[in-house]
Amino acid sequence: MSIMFRARAGPSEEIERAAVSEGVDPELIRRLIACGRAVMPCNPIHSPEPCVIGEGLTVKINANVGTSRDQPDMGMELEKARIAVRYGADTIMDLSTGGDVDAIRRAILKEVQIPVGTVPIYQEGLRAARRSAVVDMKEDDMFSGIEKHAKDGVDFMTVHCGITRESVSRLHNSGRLTDVVSRGGAFLTAWILHNQQENPLYENFDYLLEMAQKYEFAISLGDGLRPGCVADATDRAQVQELIVLGELVKRCREAGVQSMVEGPGHVPLSQIEANVQLEKRLCDNAPFYVLGPLVTDIAPGYDHIVGAIGGALAAYHGADFLCYVTPAEHLSLPTVDDVKEGVMASKIAAHAADLARGRGVDRDDRMAKARKKLDWEAMFRESLDPQKAREFRKRGVTAENEGCSMCGDVCAIRMVQKYLEK
Amino acid sequence: MSIMFRARAGPSEEIERAAVSEGVDPELIRRLIACGRAVMPCNPIHSPEPCVIGEGLTVKINANVGTSRDQPDMGMELEKARIAVRYGADTIMDLSTGGDVDAIRRAILKEVQIPVGTVPIYQEGLRAARRSAVVDMKEDDMFSGIEKHAKDGVDFMTVHCGITRESVSRLHNSGRLTDVVSRGGAFLTAWILHNQQENPLYENFDYLLEMAQKYEFAISLGDGLRPGCVADATDRAQVQELIVLGELVKRCREAGVQSMVEGPGHVPLSQIEANVQLEKRLCDNAPFYVLGPLVTDIAPGYDHIVGAIGGALAAYHGADFLCYVTPAEHLSLPTVDDVKEGVMASKIAAHAADLARGRGVDRDDRMAKARKKLDWEAMFRESLDPQKAREFRKRGVTAENEGCSMCGDVCAIRMVQKYLEK
Repeated sequence: MSIMFRARAGPSEEIERAAVSEGVDPELIRRLIACGRAVMPCNPIHSPEPCVIGEGLTVKINANVGTSRDQPDMGMELEKARIAVRYGADTIMDLSTGGDVDAIRRAILKEVQIPVGTVPIYQEGLRAARRSAVVDMKEDDMFSGIEKHAKDGVDFMTVHCGITRESVSRLHNSGRLTDVVSRGGAFLTAWILHNQQENPLYENFDYLLEMAQKYEFAISLGDGLRPGCVADATDRAQVQELIVLGELVKRCREAGVQSMVEGPGHVPLSQIEANVQLEKRLCDNAPFYVLGPLVTDIAPGYDHIVGAIGGALAAYHGADFLCYVTPAEHLSLPTVDDVKEGVMASKIAAHAADLARGRGVDRDDRMAKARKKLDWEAMFRESLDPQKAREFRKRGVTAENEGCSMCGDVCAIRMVQKYLEK
Repeated sequence: MSIMFRARAGPSEEIERAAVSEGVDPELIRRLIACGRAVMPCNPIHSPEPCVIGEGLTVKINANVGTSRDQPDMGMELEKARIAVRYGADTIMDLSTGGDVDAIRRAILKEVQIPVGTVPIYQEGLRAARRSAVVDMKEDDMFSGIEKHAKDGVDFMTVHCGITRESVSRLHNSGRLTDVVSRGGAFLTAWILHNQQENPLYENFDYLLEMAQKYEFAISLGDGLRPGCVADATDRAQVQELIVLGELVKRCREAGVQSMVEGPGHVPLSQIEANVQLEKRLCDNAPFYVLGPLVTDIAPGYDHIVGAIGGALAAYHGADFLCYVTPAEHLSLPTVDDVKEGVMASKIAAHAADLARGRGVDRDDRMAKARKKLDWEAMFRESLDPQKAREFRKRGVTAENEGCSMCGDVCAIRMVQKYLEK
């Protein structure tokens, strides 16, 4: 029986554990999973620590790792996965497209105890592309690729089932500046246009559901037509795909398969709230998993900051799951350092949203009290990155142990204290 | 005749120039300055390039530089000012408190052609503190300090006139975790509490207005009681001070003195819009100059990202002027690199807000088109930091010139193009 069906029947040990780490009533988690407003990606073969993503829970973050043809080193990607976990990623997605992709996926699954996601179509699309052309992908290969990942223990998979003849048709005369920027989306859009056939992942969605039931993986409904620049945000093609995804969410729930919905991408600040509301309404409050969103296109090298701005606002308005963006986005595969910076930026965005919705306030309060007492060890303890905080402080030499080199002897906190206490 | 009075009389050459760089009708700028909804800080002794800050205009950013007792090197601060200008700061504030503060201020005024601001009370407060105690500051010294800065050509000055016996009284039993964190605010709060007298800058505000008229500097009404942590945001003490500042804005306008209002500080995402609306309402739409705001307290070492999240949202809701925050905030005086990172983060926030309000869209569109064409030189040209973008791309070796090392041979853009064009 699937996680979702089990949740409908009653509480479980995993739900109890998730409730403890979330600090909420297990009954709340059970109800959310049962109705599909939250997911707990957990393939029994991998069996990660319970992590629940969804309505009203703390915002979770995902870090992507993975090789490319030009950088196929497995060791590097494992190191990125370790760093991401260390700095607070809640899940890892392996997007490898270079080297021995099967071996890398298995190594990552072995390495990390948090849920692992993949995009199986990459592997099949690549094989076809390197053999002849991506449009030569065979339907059987698409499904057997998914089954292979499921058997390896992958906890959630992105499947681009919303790329249909109908949604692709909306691309024509849409005035988009960047067409399709999702890789999986591009594979399937090309496939549909070339073969003049419906997307097999949509056409045979029931087969996908059977596999998800059999192996117990969560389905992350990919947004293959997500905008690739702020000018393309929230256009007819994007919303058309979202409508299809909403229908698929319903079918997932009927089949007892956990599902979430992926979202943009590139969105101006003014459209973020609307994007969250649209997803929540069109997809019956399925967990919303956003990439960024990026609120401007002109800051390559700083896209982790651009994504943190969009992510914080999206999460504040109800997005449940943020996919990190590294400083290398749009430019190159990230380094280990980039991965750390990306995780930190995303973590900050998630926490800022939690805080604004009344979650996690205690830690900020402890930091504030430590600051008032000029208790540096306590400040480091409450810091998201104690090591960096320590380094910055050490850099600025001061004559006193108390203050910092910013104010030196004119520390506002110290100055006012004695007069206020009178 | 002051800039404000002149604007009421008719257009000027500075207004024409500001309108060109802003891309709006000079008549709009003239009306905004005339009624006080925008300021153009411009001391004729310094005579910087016209920069107009206010309602509906592009969001401007300020970078703080300045020595401290522990790091009194003037050369370093001049280098920071140059870097800040190079990466797009619209104004520079010199907050020096170490070394030959007069010489540093004059050197910075000579160095940069954009408006320069200061906080004169620092110098007088420091002198008193180092002599005996900050509470021994003399009223005459406070005003003569301001006059000295004015004579040097300082274009705008932060004056903490809203710290009054009334607003300070609101601190008691307020439940604040961090009391007073503004340095100028701390000086004056301590002074009021110790001397049991009214703040001379408030008591003799007319004298300040006379000076501002005589020398033509803009008044930036400091928020001495701004919250020092998210838990303290938007509390009675902060709002009490803002009410006083609103009354002072009115007096500035009657005297033909340009004024803007400073704001927090530390504010959770959920209170940012309300903070902007409060300022705009209580202060009759005076330009709002916010520091950050920081949306969480637990990310020292990453406060430029924390401030970019808050700043973007504040500016989207109507804040006009963002004071940058560097990664060193709360830990040490920033390095030159920190200054650059702070300026970039703030610039991204300002631009994201502009974009969401329909300004500066062309550049993002050009970037999107360059991305679709995989035209890397054009992408670098549209980047806020072309050098960093180049370095990131160079780092990821690819077999082709076209794509990047993220996708290698499976570039979504390239893949879908040929099928869409059919």
